[in-house]
Amino acid sequence: MKKKKQKGQLIVLSGPSGVGKSTVIAELLGERRDMYFSVSFTTRTPRVGEADGVNYNFVSRETFEGMIAREELLEYAEYMHNYYGTSLKVIQDKLAAGIDVLLDIEVQGAATVRAKCPEAVLIFIIPPSFEELSRRLHGRATDPEDVISGRLQRAREEYRNIPSYDYLVVNDKVSQAAAEIIAILTAEDCRVRNRMHLVDDV
Amino acid sequence: MKKKKQKGQLIVLSGPSGVGKSTVIAELLGERRDMYFSVSFTTRTPRVGEADGVNYNFVSRETFEGMIAREELLEYAEYMHNYYGTSLKVIQDKLAAGIDVLLDIEVQGAATVRAKCPEAVLIFIIPPSFEELSRRLHGRATDPEDVISGRLQRAREEYRNIPSYDYLVVNDKVSQAAAEIIAILTAEDCRVRNRMHLVDDV
Repeated sequence: MKKKKQKGQLIVLSGPSGVGKSTVIAELLGERRDMYFSVSFTTRTPRVGEADGVNYNFVSRETFEGMIAREELLEYAEYMHNYYGTSLKVIQDKLAAGIDVLLDIEVQGAATVRAKCPEAVLIFIIPPSFEELSRRLHGRATDPEDVISGRLQRAREEYRNIPSYDYLVVNDKVSQAAAEIIAILTAEDCRVRNRMHLVDDV
Repeated sequence: MKKKKQKGQLIVLSGPSGVGKSTVIAELLGERRDMYFSVSFTTRTPRVGEADGVNYNFVSRETFEGMIAREELLEYAEYMHNYYGTSLKVIQDKLAAGIDVLLDIEVQGAATVRAKCPEAVLIFIIPPSFEELSRRLHGRATDPEDVISGRLQRAREEYRNIPSYDYLVVNDKVSQAAAEIIAILTAEDCRVRNRMHLVDDV
């Protein structure tokens, strides 16, 4: 019996704040229970309902800067005066074991991952329209107006990075967006370079 | 409302004789009724159960050579002393109308399509093993032994072209192979270059 997978895929998911990424990821992980979701480290304060070790590993600025110094991060970025970063070792171990790893990171971090792991699959999620994004951010109502306009401005900048991603998914319906991402992962598994070990030497 | 698709995808399916491509295609077309299957032209004799205009457009050598002379073919190739080719105009019209077009062609033709349409999606189908291919060809029992060994030799040569394809699908279970191809097509629709028209200019 031929081994189905030689190595896990590294999948990067980015998208503007308010696009509904967490909901899409929850749906995705429900369907693909074999996949490992890498919980990022951050120095920002938890939002209402966020749990340490689930949404993020919440750490102090000192701890985070120690990780940077010891080169324990695959990527990190500063965004709205807070650090966000991804642990390197956990990811390497999972990929080597043939497990797909999902990263939820912003555009700066995604560019670093692309540079370090050219075979990573980069997916950008957008809302059906930019007006809809503004509606969603206002509807969430956890942030004051100046924070929301900061996020919208940031979203505009992120949009400029879309051409450096591989795939674009529109989060109109969550189930549809998750299904498209699952299709993307299946397709990437089918790439010739990921399947040459299944070809008999004739 | 944003237009979902600007242009159809050109999908090329290749695989050795005996791999079960026709069955996979039938399953695929059943699931994706919006897709257009391009019926190739050929000068070979119909097999038992094959119908003109369904499996192939069966034409004489003279007719085929006229099409070559008038440059009416996207690609054509000679295989086992018979011509096989694809009509250009029909395909161009479908793609322009946003309809995906599926071509069932061998490796030579696929290489021509790749050269003329770099964005075509090339999928190669293999059996679970080469021994299984031999079993299937013998099981079909429509061909004498020397034809079968000719097909196996040809299959060996085709295998060498796998690295120039985008995707590799193993036809172990037909439904699984068809599902993988459908996932590939969904993923290709999600490619950033095929979706930039969905991104608001912010």
